[in-house]
Amino acid sequence: MKPQAQPSIHPLWRDAQGRVVMIDQTLLPHQEVHHVCASAEDTARAIETMVVRGAPAIGVAAAMGIALGASQLADAELAEGLAGLYARMARTRPTAVNLFWAIDRMRAAAEAHQGTPGALRDLLDREAQAIFDEDFLANQAMGDHGAALVPDGARILTHCNAGALATAGWGTALGVIRSAVREGKRVHVYADETRPFLQGSRLTAWELMRDEIPVTLLADNAAGHLIASGGIDLAIVGTDRTVLNGDVANKIGTYQVAVLCHRHGIPFYVAAPTSTLDLTLEDGRAIPIEERAADEVRTAMGHPIAPTDVPVYNPSFDVTPAELVSAIITEQGIARAPYARSLPPLAEAGRRARLRA
Amino acid sequence: MKPQAQPSIHPLWRDAQGRVVMIDQTLLPHQEVHHVCASAEDTARAIETMVVRGAPAIGVAAAMGIALGASQLADAELAEGLAGLYARMARTRPTAVNLFWAIDRMRAAAEAHQGTPGALRDLLDREAQAIFDEDFLANQAMGDHGAALVPDGARILTHCNAGALATAGWGTALGVIRSAVREGKRVHVYADETRPFLQGSRLTAWELMRDEIPVTLLADNAAGHLIASGGIDLAIVGTDRTVLNGDVANKIGTYQVAVLCHRHGIPFYVAAPTSTLDLTLEDGRAIPIEERAADEVRTAMGHPIAPTDVPVYNPSFDVTPAELVSAIITEQGIARAPYARSLPPLAEAGRRARLRA
Repeated sequence: MKPQAQPSIHPLWRDAQGRVVMIDQTLLPHQEVHHVCASAEDTARAIETMVVRGAPAIGVAAAMGIALGASQLADAELAEGLAGLYARMARTRPTAVNLFWAIDRMRAAAEAHQGTPGALRDLLDREAQAIFDEDFLANQAMGDHGAALVPDGARILTHCNAGALATAGWGTALGVIRSAVREGKRVHVYADETRPFLQGSRLTAWELMRDEIPVTLLADNAAGHLIASGGIDLAIVGTDRTVLNGDVANKIGTYQVAVLCHRHGIPFYVAAPTSTLDLTLEDGRAIPIEERAADEVRTAMGHPIAPTDVPVYNPSFDVTPAELVSAIITEQGIARAPYARSLPPLAEAGRRARLRA
Repeated sequence: MKPQAQPSIHPLWRDAQGRVVMIDQTLLPHQEVHHVCASAEDTARAIETMVVRGAPAIGVAAAMGIALGASQLADAELAEGLAGLYARMARTRPTAVNLFWAIDRMRAAAEAHQGTPGALRDLLDREAQAIFDEDFLANQAMGDHGAALVPDGARILTHCNAGALATAGWGTALGVIRSAVREGKRVHVYADETRPFLQGSRLTAWELMRDEIPVTLLADNAAGHLIASGGIDLAIVGTDRTVLNGDVANKIGTYQVAVLCHRHGIPFYVAAPTSTLDLTLEDGRAIPIEERAADEVRTAMGHPIAPTDVPVYNPSFDVTPAELVSAIITEQGIARAPYARSLPPLAEAGRRARLRA
């Protein structure tokens, strides 16, 4: 895989001092602030507080944070300290499988290492960078596969932000759209605002406007009317974890979009880098669903919009059953039902590609 | 019909000077401000800007505004001035049928009048008050019918605010819940926040907390996961206009709730005073759907939450097809499919009850 386009948006990187720097996604779209994490703990907190979010970006950030943390550990405490870093990162967010995948990969690299502490630190730096690079390349490859599903003139509904900001760059769902645009197709994107965290209005709208891809914002409530009115040709979303039978965990509200598409005969596609596949789980019932703080729903970008003491139900993800998923787009190709048969070879190809890298 | 309970919330009234006073619903839940309309034009603007909202309350407000306007017209210009007032009120909001029903009723009363201008003004005052009183009594009667559909211990999903604030008091959907509570039933209400205008988080949560009815707030996106998880026993919503075949226009997002309930076998009820029935329309396709300003979606309670220039799709209502509606609750009884057969006798009974009043 080779990069075919330069990203227009850089969501996170390491600076000359090795610190982890990220666009603070809690402040977009009104302020573009670079949030500097000077330690692994800073990085873990940035993941918890959603300064960085999106399953692939979370995995990259965790790997970078571990590498940064290792650079700050004395030789004698390196082994024990690393174990603590893996555990700390694993506590940040429960749903995105990339997080655990990235931690395991850093751990495996460290455990296989036989050299000096200094060489181990270098190795972890390179491994984190490899996770970043591979994610970017996988996004572009996935985009190219997925673009075949996007007709010229397509009106595309998306939910949350599965864009450059959610990844190392390019994006998963928005990566497919970017690839279609690069092929010369005209598209119009409808972006659900995605309460409570507003990833659609704050991030997807910002990112598509920056790339001059036509976008219209709507309240999550308006998706049903839009679909029922014939305003959408297809929907495409990302995923935090997709399991063996094709059940898809993604941002809360995704399930509703899928149900509506199914009712109206609209294709519902999921862009899933193989790093988001968790084929150890048979179906979606076993995916842990994170519940987040009540104040996310009582506020909008920090502004109170509800009684301050109202009880709140705030699951951050839901599970879309495979029967509602028209296809799952990976960097290794497109899977169709039955997913328990189509996904494993793609996951295996993804694993081999990463080993070769 | 006799009042069986005093309302705990008074959404609008006329003061000693005849002005129309209303709780400013754009400022709830953080400020409880009485908005004073000193003229018919003030009242029309209050309806347009959603200081008062909810189909029955809009009808009451328009009638009160016409009566107020009549009191400020000179004898010689009364007939022409009234025609202007009807037209002005009719331009405020297009979807709620109560608005047109209330205007027509004021017009019919005025046209049938044979006495002095002073007597005509008194008549319009009384007619507006009668519309208010009848709405309150109809809400209580509807609540009593609907309470039979609410089992003890029910977990009830509602969307938008079909509460005391949307009516002369008591509420339609929330009136059914209040009546069930008055009968001694335990309930737990789940309130969709209802973007973009946040009637659920700002109004329904406020109103139920004030009455000490257990309520949990959720993002509109979380309704699907809640329903799929078995967390809801029934849903009940209000309506701005329900037509002959049982198609229901209500706040944007209602359709999605109905689709989700249908998929999971959960009853979906609509509380519809007969004043919201428009049996002149065969089906929901002919109902005009109001599109509101882009800034409603770009902001939350006035705070920017999206790029300031992002294009927006903001339909304020959607239509739920009758096939998804388990029953329609009116003050004259409960209608079941086929609605074209069950609704007309209830509408006629409602009309006769109003004539008797």
